Amino acid sequence: MVLERLQQMAGHFTGQVVQTHPFDPLSREEITAAVAIVRKEHPDVFFNAVTLWEPRKVEMMKWVASPDTVPRPARVADVVAIGRGSKVFDGLVNLNEGRLVKWALTEGVQPLITMEDLQIVEKIVRKDPKVIEQCGIIGIPPEDMHKVYCDPWTIGYDERFGSGIRLQQALMYYRPHVDDSQYTYPLDFCPIFNSDTEEIIHIDVPKVRRPQNTALPINYHADAIAKEVGYRKDLKPINISQPEGVSFTVDGRTVTWQNWSVHVGFNYREGIVLSNITFNDRGAVRPVFWRISLAEMVVPYGNPEHPHQRKHAFDLGEYGGGYMTNSLSLSCDCKGAIHYMDADFVNRAGEAQTIKNAICIHEEDAGILFKHTDFRDDSCTVTRARKLVISQIFTAANYEYCVYWIFMQDGTIQLEIKLTGILNTYSLNPGESAAPWGTEVYPGVNAHNHQHLFCLRVDPNIDGPNNTVFQADAVAADAPVGSTENFYGNAFYAKKTKLDRQGMAKCDYDGSTSRTWEMANENKINPYSKKPVSYKLVSREVPSLLPKEGSLVWKRAGFARHAVHVTKYSDDQIHPAGRHVPQTSGSPSQGLPLWQSENPDESLENTDVVLWHTFGLTHFPSPEDYPVMPAEPMTVLLRPRNFFTQNPCLDVPPSYSSTPSQVAAGKRAWRGLVDGVSRMAFGGGGEKMGSNDY
Amino acid sequence: MVLERLQQMAGHFTGQVVQTHPFDPLSREEITAAVAIVRKEHPDVFFNAVTLWEPRKVEMMKWVASPDTVPRPARVADVVAIGRGSKVFDGLVNLNEGRLVKWALTEGVQPLITMEDLQIVEKIVRKDPKVIEQCGIIGIPPEDMHKVYCDPWTIGYDERFGSGIRLQQALMYYRPHVDDSQYTYPLDFCPIFNSDTEEIIHIDVPKVRRPQNTALPINYHADAIAKEVGYRKDLKPINISQPEGVSFTVDGRTVTWQNWSVHVGFNYREGIVLSNITFNDRGAVRPVFWRISLAEMVVPYGNPEHPHQRKHAFDLGEYGGGYMTNSLSLSCDCKGAIHYMDADFVNRAGEAQTIKNAICIHEEDAGILFKHTDFRDDSCTVTRARKLVISQIFTAANYEYCVYWIFMQDGTIQLEIKLTGILNTYSLNPGESAAPWGTEVYPGVNAHNHQHLFCLRVDPNIDGPNNTVFQADAVAADAPVGSTENFYGNAFYAKKTKLDRQGMAKCDYDGSTSRTWEMANENKINPYSKKPVSYKLVSREVPSLLPKEGSLVWKRAGFARHAVHVTKYSDDQIHPAGRHVPQTSGSPSQGLPLWQSENPDESLENTDVVLWHTFGLTHFPSPEDYPVMPAEPMTVLLRPRNFFTQNPCLDVPPSYSSTPSQVAAGKRAWRGLVDGVSRMAFGGGGEKMGSNDY
Repeated sequence: MVLERLQQMAGHFTGQVVQTHPFDPLSREEITAAVAIVRKEHPDVFFNAVTLWEPRKVEMMKWVASPDTVPRPARVADVVAIGRGSKVFDGLVNLNEGRLVKWALTEGVQPLITMEDLQIVEKIVRKDPKVIEQCGIIGIPPEDMHKVYCDPWTIGYDERFGSGIRLQQALMYYRPHVDDSQYTYPLDFCPIFNSDTEEIIHIDVPKVRRPQNTALPINYHADAIAKEVGYRKDLKPINISQPEGVSFTVDGRTVTWQNWSVHVGFNYREGIVLSNITFNDRGAVRPVFWRISLAEMVVPYGNPEHPHQRKHAFDLGEYGGGYMTNSLSLSCDCKGAIHYMDADFVNRAGEAQTIKNAICIHEEDAGILFKHTDFRDDSCTVTRARKLVISQIFTAANYEYCVYWIFMQDGTIQLEIKLTGILNTYSLNPGESAAPWGTEVYPGVNAHNHQHLFCLRVDPNIDGPNNTVFQADAVAADAPVGSTENFYGNAFYAKKTKLDRQGMAKCDYDGSTSRTWEMANENKINPYSKKPVSYKLVSREVPSLLPKEGSLVWKRAGFARHAVHVTKYSDDQIHPAGRHVPQTSGSPSQGLPLWQSENPDESLENTDVVLWHTFGLTHFPSPEDYPVMPAEPMTVLLRPRNFFTQNPCLDVPPSYSSTPSQVAAGKRAWRGLVDGVSRMAFGGGGEKMGSNDY
Repeated sequence: MVLERLQQMAGHFTGQVVQTHPFDPLSREEITAAVAIVRKEHPDVFFNAVTLWEPRKVEMMKWVASPDTVPRPARVADVVAIGRGSKVFDGLVNLNEGRLVKWALTEGVQPLITMEDLQIVEKIVRKDPKVIEQCGIIGIPPEDMHKVYCDPWTIGYDERFGSGIRLQQALMYYRPHVDDSQYTYPLDFCPIFNSDTEEIIHIDVPKVRRPQNTALPINYHADAIAKEVGYRKDLKPINISQPEGVSFTVDGRTVTWQNWSVHVGFNYREGIVLSNITFNDRGAVRPVFWRISLAEMVVPYGNPEHPHQRKHAFDLGEYGGGYMTNSLSLSCDCKGAIHYMDADFVNRAGEAQTIKNAICIHEEDAGILFKHTDFRDDSCTVTRARKLVISQIFTAANYEYCVYWIFMQDGTIQLEIKLTGILNTYSLNPGESAAPWGTEVYPGVNAHNHQHLFCLRVDPNIDGPNNTVFQADAVAADAPVGSTENFYGNAFYAKKTKLDRQGMAKCDYDGSTSRTWEMANENKINPYSKKPVSYKLVSREVPSLLPKEGSLVWKRAGFARHAVHVTKYSDDQIHPAGRHVPQTSGSPSQGLPLWQSENPDESLENTDVVLWHTFGLTHFPSPEDYPVMPAEPMTVLLRPRNFFTQNPCLDVPPSYSSTPSQVAAGKRAWRGLVDGVSRMAFGGGGEKMGSNDY
């Protein structure tokens, strides 16, 4: 076993034994090797991240084009380490060469907070005399300090403390019983924790105190529900099975399904990363997207009272969508025939850690793919759809984000995100109004207004890397009613605006024009429509960033100021709020605004571009969301437009197809993918069918 | 059998034998009886519609409250009949009393076009000498007239012909072979058909002629695909089964599922009608909606050339979403355990006709309902969702509309509509550009830009009929950054505007403020949030009506001018573009604009109101949509806000639930609705589970 592992490691380093795909995440062995190489020169650091430093695009594109002749890009580990005194080191380890090729002290930044960083705070808080004192003031005696909990967030940014020391803010709660939801018992003060010295350096205490909530617990776990009203007993199982197996194949981490091929990567920060996405268009393997990921997000809360302005979590950049990912469970999180992939990370001590079943891959029935009936004779073709879902769920303290990357047979890629989990809450005095900045969702529980704003990073590769982005608006013709050109006033068209310079490539959403954005390859024209081949971004949940221009959130989350930004591709531009996000002041705003403003005249025309899309929702809580939120979905689509010369899923066998001549001749229709399992709900078998069923 | 039928009929009339629900559609027997009663006095009419005249609301609400003591509302048939000379009669037949209680000649209107009306035109067109002449001009010889087809639309409105004569326009096509899609071969001229005399009265011929398309056929039926490239063979079945049966019950046409109860009606016009929707809130049956339906739609096309301005089909008001409904087929349209309902209509001759399996009712797994993991100890509750889907599919000539009314466990009602079928097409000369009003989707095939605008009618009954509608916008606080009230600039809230008078209750959509509308009962305040109980309309596909103000479409489809209209309830206001839609001029605009403008000062505050919501999409065709369109979905949600005092689906058994104390004690977690069917995709059984699986 050890020998085999070492051989695998050797394989990675020489490229001979194990053919690791250059986009594969670092394996446990590679993480261990990278740590060992760093430790030789820097024995005293803690590890914040050891992750794949992705191959440079130029080199990687060459290898993808000719993997048999072009040298395989080297395996490089991207290392973030922390030394005493909140010192931050950024390093690169070339694993093929076995050496540290870069190591730099990076000043004025703080890397993200890991799960281990989070876990420490609660212990310290419970023992801190000043915290114990504050607990006493609102009614928690010292002997109950084991019932005090905290969700330790990064401090975000607090001008009093700056960026030099690694800090967390402890959102405080209480549990009458260990199994009670602490979010019903928020405490009104907020300790600040120094991660370097592991001590509480300050406590923010509000002017108006709010004694401990006296409401009865409200819980959602099975023991509580069973005790109270019990579960309903009328739910009969819905079974989903694939007795002949699944319709996708997995080679390493490359998944092939229908006409799609995609490499499924994963890192501590973005979670799932989809790379080198291609579509087999009747024999021609056409590149579609080079890389897609959720690159960042921010959750600003809308209560202006100090210190709630600090509540605007960058869940990816400040905590890591990979680090927080759930280990998924068959038939609970995932139903049907499932393929899981694990995720490997480093821990603080430099050891490799694995989250089992971090990624779920499965197929789902997706209703009707297409259908048409001829009203003359009822001749009909109906074809059922299915989809391939690549998903993960991560828990960001109170909230859960369920992320589903969905591939469709018609060439569409959908990103669906479901929000569930528990509202972030704050205390409320009896008789105090939570309005207008929040809602009392349960007695004494104030859930503040907030937004969930996600930043989708799309690196298009629409028949090659040289693409151009257009904004498209559905608008009426200019010509007035009664004019020769528009006599009846019904003329309308798609108005396109080319986003051709980096300085102007930032767009707001306009729901009234059904605004979309097209990533087009102007070098390749659809032979029928005479329009460039393209993929269109269709997104309808696109709220404005509600924190005002010039506000703290506006400055720190520059990517969220506009619905779409476009930039010229750069290998180093992955993180739209900056590589290290905690404790950035926003002056200047890191990431996207900086990249665009540094080179406003950079051409975005027919070149390698990246589209950044901020979408999400604004949440005004209500009691329905408590004590646990029913999942709320939102969707973004990437749809082929003028990319194909015809419906690309005509190759999917229909359930049923008859032609007019077959109907006329009384011939049996084509019956394809019809299961023998569907049944009538009440009595009867599968035999009672509609008139379409010849 | 005859006796039994007669007894049933007697039962309907006396209310003694068969307890028909007052909202049930007319049965075959009732239709036959109504026709017989009309015929006694008016023997020479043709029947356009015989449908349920729904009980007046005041009377019906009394009966619903006390069905055992209040007299059951009478069964009344609403009759539309047509006499020679395009004469239109509107009548009412009281079936309990067996008499015609109203019969009126209605002048200046034309009722919708039935499937029978459509079928006649093609025969006439093929024999008409002027049509044959026009066919010759563009290259179709007289002996090929059997290869000429037409989709006969209502004329819409054409000022040259007015509203006095019942007219259709024949959109002309050609089929090289009977099984070829005619939409590849549109003809360039448009005959006008008089339905009364059954003759062609005019032909619209364009200035620029477009000879017959010479492109090869492009088809999607099984024979064509099998001949050309063949179907892919890698799709393995996905089976969905409910071995223990379904979780809903059906009593007559009242469906009970989870906490929901809903009466499922159906008529020739709107198709599915959902009435008396209630939610059992921990023992209290609470009314939610009195009636929901798709009440109207319009599909304006964006090409300004004459006579394309006439292409703006009101598919419900001009053809009937019920009349055009498909007979559904098990395991093709519907998978799993299905309950079907049939639909009964009258035909032109007054006979009862049945569409088998017109409505499909089934459950679906719906992913995760809610989940939360405590990051401290991985204690976790995860509950899977399911939904109840009540659906129909209707074919409007070239297009298919799949309508899914979806009930969720969390109190949400979703309307999902999928668009599929075939693009409406027009001819294009070689070298001619289809831009900007259309797209060449295949050589010689011009698919015009168009919108699909649906009008959802919602009659709220939020804890009773006296409701008020508010517009809600997510907006930043007024106070500037740096001010005392908003120092960090992060304050935001939901700004509510009460729609309190009929004259001002018309609202546009605003995507940037995530605009929603709340139907609230101000008489009932949520005890926790102190806000009125409400349901919120969440809709994100809300394009502007693109035909300009004052245009023909703007005038005729007044309901589509704004995203939301609110009116005071009136029994007679069901159809927002008027009771009879074909050949309305729009001067004045029928339906909604008329109702609002007639009584602008009518109060909408705390009274019985109706909300009308127009949503949909703008479609700029592309070759991907041809020769048959992959289904494109759109969604509207009705979500409870401040309606419940807690998450209303806590009664759904979780798949998995563990508490911190169980984790600490190493105790087995609660395992509920876990199927034994889910499996690993490759090797292994269901046993390989995540770390959450204790």
